[in-house]
Amino acid sequence: MNQNRPQEHQIDLSQYTVRTDLARESHEMAAKKRSDGSSIPGVQIWENTDGGITTSWIWIKNEQGAREIGKVPGTYLTIEAPGLRSRDSIFGQKVAGHFADQFERFLQEAGIGPNDSCLIVGLGNWNVTADAFGPLVVKHTMVTRHLFELEPEAVAEGYRPVSALSPGVLGLTGIETSDIIKGVVEKARPDFVIAFDSLASRALTRVNTTIQVADTGIHPGSGVGNKRKALTRETLGIPVIAIGVPTVVDAVTIAFDTIDFVTAHLGREIHGVKSNPLDPYKRPSVKDLQDYRTPDETVHRMMGLFGALGDDEKRQLIHEVLSPLGQNLIVTPKEVDSFMAAIAKIIANSVNCALHESVNMENVASHVW
Amino acid sequence: MNQNRPQEHQIDLSQYTVRTDLARESHEMAAKKRSDGSSIPGVQIWENTDGGITTSWIWIKNEQGAREIGKVPGTYLTIEAPGLRSRDSIFGQKVAGHFADQFERFLQEAGIGPNDSCLIVGLGNWNVTADAFGPLVVKHTMVTRHLFELEPEAVAEGYRPVSALSPGVLGLTGIETSDIIKGVVEKARPDFVIAFDSLASRALTRVNTTIQVADTGIHPGSGVGNKRKALTRETLGIPVIAIGVPTVVDAVTIAFDTIDFVTAHLGREIHGVKSNPLDPYKRPSVKDLQDYRTPDETVHRMMGLFGALGDDEKRQLIHEVLSPLGQNLIVTPKEVDSFMAAIAKIIANSVNCALHESVNMENVASHVW
Amino acid sequence: MNQNRPQEHQIDLSQYTVRTDLARESHEMAAKKRSDGSSIPGVQIWENTDGGITTSWIWIKNEQGAREIGKVPGTYLTIEAPGLRSRDSIFGQKVAGHFADQFERFLQEAGIGPNDSCLIVGLGNWNVTADAFGPLVVKHTMVTRHLFELEPEAVAEGYRPVSALSPGVLGLTGIETSDIIKGVVEKARPDFVIAFDSLASRALTRVNTTIQVADTGIHPGSGVGNKRKALTRETLGIPVIAIGVPTVVDAVTIAFDTIDFVTAHLGREIHGVKSNPLDPYKRPSVKDLQDYRTPDETVHRMMGLFGALGDDEKRQLIHEVLSPLGQNLIVTPKEVDSFMAAIAKIIANSVNCALHESVNMENVASHVW
Amino acid sequence: MNQNRPQEHQIDLSQYTVRTDLARESHEMAAKKRSDGSSIPGVQIWENTDGGITTSWIWIKNEQGAREIGKVPGTYLTIEAPGLRSRDSIFGQKVAGHFADQFERFLQEAGIGPNDSCLIVGLGNWNVTADAFGPLVVKHTMVTRHLFELEPEAVAEGYRPVSALSPGVLGLTGIETSDIIKGVVEKARPDFVIAFDSLASRALTRVNTTIQVADTGIHPGSGVGNKRKALTRETLGIPVIAIGVPTVVDAVTIAFDTIDFVTAHLGREIHGVKSNPLDPYKRPSVKDLQDYRTPDETVHRMMGLFGALGDDEKRQLIHEVLSPLGQNLIVTPKEVDSFMAAIAKIIANSVNCALHESVNMENVASHVW
Repeated sequence: MNQNRPQEHQIDLSQYTVRTDLARESHEMAAKKRSDGSSIPGVQIWENTDGGITTSWIWIKNEQGAREIGKVPGTYLTIEAPGLRSRDSIFGQKVAGHFADQFERFLQEAGIGPNDSCLIVGLGNWNVTADAFGPLVVKHTMVTRHLFELEPEAVAEGYRPVSALSPGVLGLTGIETSDIIKGVVEKARPDFVIAFDSLASRALTRVNTTIQVADTGIHPGSGVGNKRKALTRETLGIPVIAIGVPTVVDAVTIAFDTIDFVTAHLGREIHGVKSNPLDPYKRPSVKDLQDYRTPDETVHRMMGLFGALGDDEKRQLIHEVLSPLGQNLIVTPKEVDSFMAAIAKIIANSVNCALHESVNMENVASHVW
Repeated sequence: MNQNRPQEHQIDLSQYTVRTDLARESHEMAAKKRSDGSSIPGVQIWENTDGGITTSWIWIKNEQGAREIGKVPGTYLTIEAPGLRSRDSIFGQKVAGHFADQFERFLQEAGIGPNDSCLIVGLGNWNVTADAFGPLVVKHTMVTRHLFELEPEAVAEGYRPVSALSPGVLGLTGIETSDIIKGVVEKARPDFVIAFDSLASRALTRVNTTIQVADTGIHPGSGVGNKRKALTRETLGIPVIAIGVPTVVDAVTIAFDTIDFVTAHLGREIHGVKSNPLDPYKRPSVKDLQDYRTPDETVHRMMGLFGALGDDEKRQLIHEVLSPLGQNLIVTPKEVDSFMAAIAKIIANSVNCALHESVNMENVASHVW
Repeated sequence: MNQNRPQEHQIDLSQYTVRTDLARESHEMAAKKRSDGSSIPGVQIWENTDGGITTSWIWIKNEQGAREIGKVPGTYLTIEAPGLRSRDSIFGQKVAGHFADQFERFLQEAGIGPNDSCLIVGLGNWNVTADAFGPLVVKHTMVTRHLFELEPEAVAEGYRPVSALSPGVLGLTGIETSDIIKGVVEKARPDFVIAFDSLASRALTRVNTTIQVADTGIHPGSGVGNKRKALTRETLGIPVIAIGVPTVVDAVTIAFDTIDFVTAHLGREIHGVKSNPLDPYKRPSVKDLQDYRTPDETVHRMMGLFGALGDDEKRQLIHEVLSPLGQNLIVTPKEVDSFMAAIAKIIANSVNCALHESVNMENVASHVW
Repeated sequence: MNQNRPQEHQIDLSQYTVRTDLARESHEMAAKKRSDGSSIPGVQIWENTDGGITTSWIWIKNEQGAREIGKVPGTYLTIEAPGLRSRDSIFGQKVAGHFADQFERFLQEAGIGPNDSCLIVGLGNWNVTADAFGPLVVKHTMVTRHLFELEPEAVAEGYRPVSALSPGVLGLTGIETSDIIKGVVEKARPDFVIAFDSLASRALTRVNTTIQVADTGIHPGSGVGNKRKALTRETLGIPVIAIGVPTVVDAVTIAFDTIDFVTAHLGREIHGVKSNPLDPYKRPSVKDLQDYRTPDETVHRMMGLFGALGDDEKRQLIHEVLSPLGQNLIVTPKEVDSFMAAIAKIIANSVNCALHESVNMENVASHVW
């Protein structure tokens, strides 16, 4: 039924797109869609879990991989450390040290030299805690560029010129953030940019416990008109490395992950063998159910059931599902304030270590006291 | 099937109890459970919507009503103003004025005299924005008690003695909040207490747009051992009025509201006539579906389907539903910072007006500059 | 004696220069130096006190006046409202209204048209309360430029495009503030700039109660090398209006004002007729003593007494005077937090009114809620 | 001359009392008044400087010593570390370690046992940075009392029960701070109290670089009526240890220190041999001048010169000296925000170490993360 009314359902479905800024989540969803379990062409992945920290590198090498995953081609490093929730400072230190090492390797792979000057950009709105990740990192960044400019002979070995800026957001400044950055890059002439930003995740578990690094720059939205607002090597003329931490989840995602799972389960009872890739005669294991979680198919099936209703009723019904969630669908954990403070400090310390040879986890605190 | 295994499902279900601190939501859910549409004995309700503000008074007059609704007997005033989301200051002023009037009436009904001295208590953790409603109100409270103590002759007509305290939370002080309040009440000897606290709501729409006033005091948790931690007339010896604003939602509620609705819809197709109170031969209207939303029944039905699984699988399956939501299940809108600042200011202004005859919406700003 | 060792005293004296950023104080000091009471050539002044607010306009019209006063040629508007200390919100509103009127006139005199687009720059360090005046004003600024860019047809009559930026300070960004501003001006292309900055005053009374407006831009320091760091019509290519509020006083100024006064008094007894312009045979009135307060002359006289000491002793003696004051010679009133918040709000409201025809003191609060 | 009009000068002089809360400064001034260089009876002092940190213990053992110094009898430990200004974190750590050792010794001398339960009280106004030392320390305090209450078996060895409270100030709460503390002490029943408060110093150099510990409790003001507001063993029934850091200086002190020094110098020229204890025929060394600095005598002499003026003129003249300093005579260094944050953190860490055997400078950070 759904197939007969593609145009209207597409509109509805576009509203339901699972929102994530994490390549790792996008890759996971894309991989699940491949019913034959084959890997995605043009995409390479490396993953390791050790001491409560999962490290993964995803290389999207061509347009096909990019299209299938829904991310631009490039290198994505992801660090997942769910234990950060417990706010154990020893573990926090460990994550910082590990991230510093990985990020140093990332910089090398990106072709950044040890003396290349860096502009740290803290994107986001400092008045909105969940959006303040960028400005918070800037606050803890070791700024050295002015020392190189004013008294170069006084700067010890093992440091590079680093400048930092939190440009604010359009609503606060009235100026496109990309324009501010471009203006400043033209004057300060850094060799590369690291841009920090708050991300959206699919799962609350990843909020404030995951770090994503990408060499693709920042792509706000995906519309044509937004191209000029991007912060990329193309627009700035220098490498732009993006470091993000998921700080929010779309409440619709929470709702749909639930629908998804429940309909997957109920679906077997409704549709029986044909629509169910699991063996209908065998009671499904939890692992089976988990593998079976194919959001879009589920949504389509649910949409199919909607089909029996008239158009107006359908519209109302969808509205009905969403309205209890309210207008403010983007949510963040209640403890956002302390989570943000902790992860921003950890990342800033790591980046300070990775950028300056003379700074390490032992002495970083004394540099930014 | 479910009926045969009540003990184990009860354990699971206890986890799924829809969490709300709002009498209005509890009443709504209790009313829906009454399939005959009859009103709940011992409960009186008055409701009015005007200019975008819904005002409701719920009087729970006896134990039966209290049990059915799940709230202690008392008077509950609720102001709902979804338009506060738009942050239109004209509308904010209107809500403040309306709430001041209603709260003045509430004080009269509660037997509070115009010169009775008041202790304002701001409950909650000022380090957690979503929990900082109480401390934020205290910040904007007109404090006058010391003027009455130090130079009573200098205090103009139309004011009453008001003191204010944000006692912090157990994790910050190491002392039960109720002990701090009791100690201070014994020294400051107010005639009544108004305690401000952050609440949990069932719906994101109500977050930071709803105000609840109750003459029942504060009942943290509901266990037996907690009785001594309550802030009530019983424990403090003076009337305790509670003013709360929902600032968080349990993510499980979001998930379950969705499951609820979808299974209600799918349920008709699965179970047909018998389990469906709606006429199976008539296509259900959206209104029908909405009325049909009986969370617990749905959960039970879903649980019934679970029944076919073994116990371990069942446990894993439930875990499966919840784990994508993460450990931090209590969420708040991303914009929590500005929402909280706005509603706390509105309520503080209203309360300042209601407490002091000489203060009104026109001059309140100059009193707390 | 002093005259015989000009070179070494000059060095010492340079340390003692009374530090003020207020043209009004510089003018006052310059006027007092003219023993014949004549007015300074090339300088015009208008002054009025009404309802607790002193308004003065100083026009420095040529280089001679500039040299004698020690300020670059231009127009200086000063509003002094000592009553702001009492934090009476009615008076605060009055000051805001008066300043809005005066500033509107200032904009007209500076040739700024009603639709000219404006970039608000908040200079200073937001981490240092006493230096945060600029960033605090930016926080309360009505930003509209993006509305003109994104949906020009939706902007009502009576508004102009306004953007705003707090660029931070060199120690925070590693980039010269002037470079950031220049870069942003080149991208955002405003018609004029208003730069807000914290100033130093000679007197604690003026701290946070005085507003200075100048059409001369911002001149950090006065050394040759700093010329490129200036924010002026010369460096930015557009008019730059500076609005400043004194927030700090040099403790040495406090010390020297005291020395000055006491030595003026004692001086009569020591030096008798010759060094005393007051009639030695007539007991001086307080008015005489006040008029007699010529800091530099006093300092010179004191220096003369120093002359009897050897060079090393002299150096130690000067050090002796200064060392009890400590290294941190720049001080601010203990109440700096609330004073800053109040004056920044007043000025932002005034500027919002002066910049937009449709905004006035009655509706400004609803624009920036 | 002065001697003939003691009554009126006394009034004036009372205004000029050098304001300090530091026993060390009071002792220094008292010692200088003793022209024979003899030590003050009933007062014992021990002092040592090592590695940039000066440690002094003053024991005021009887009423005579107390009267001469102007401090109540008791033990005063003072740590002076001017190097904290440079904000070198290595030095900060060193000061923290040293203070932890000294404070542990202080607790032993005060008869506090290793398991005695402690209530930390953070006095002062968190809205006024210069007055927020107490609340800032509370923020970094390890709070453990609730763990002992809720699950005593889970608390590891080497910790003691610690609770903490920032009661606010009278203007914020409307309740005497001492009443709040008394009420809480009666409920929480600690064995002793440590009260943290901001102090006034005579010298800007000591601001935020000096720590004073006293076993005398807190004595707000010194009037008779204030006795009940004191936080002492007498009023609370348990030992009260006060830890203070000077955060402000009275601007009048700055002025008078300058007058003092200059008049001391000029005085020799005016009054010749008789009024000058220094040999009039020998050019005074800087050391001589320094020793000669006896504020009160100088003020008296200056007052003597005032004697020639009529009463009204005199009053105006004094006003004249003070008015340029403004109404807000209490000043704090411009950098108060970062200084306060640093010293509060250092002291909180030290106190956490001194209170809990299992906490030391190496692991303290992980306890309060």
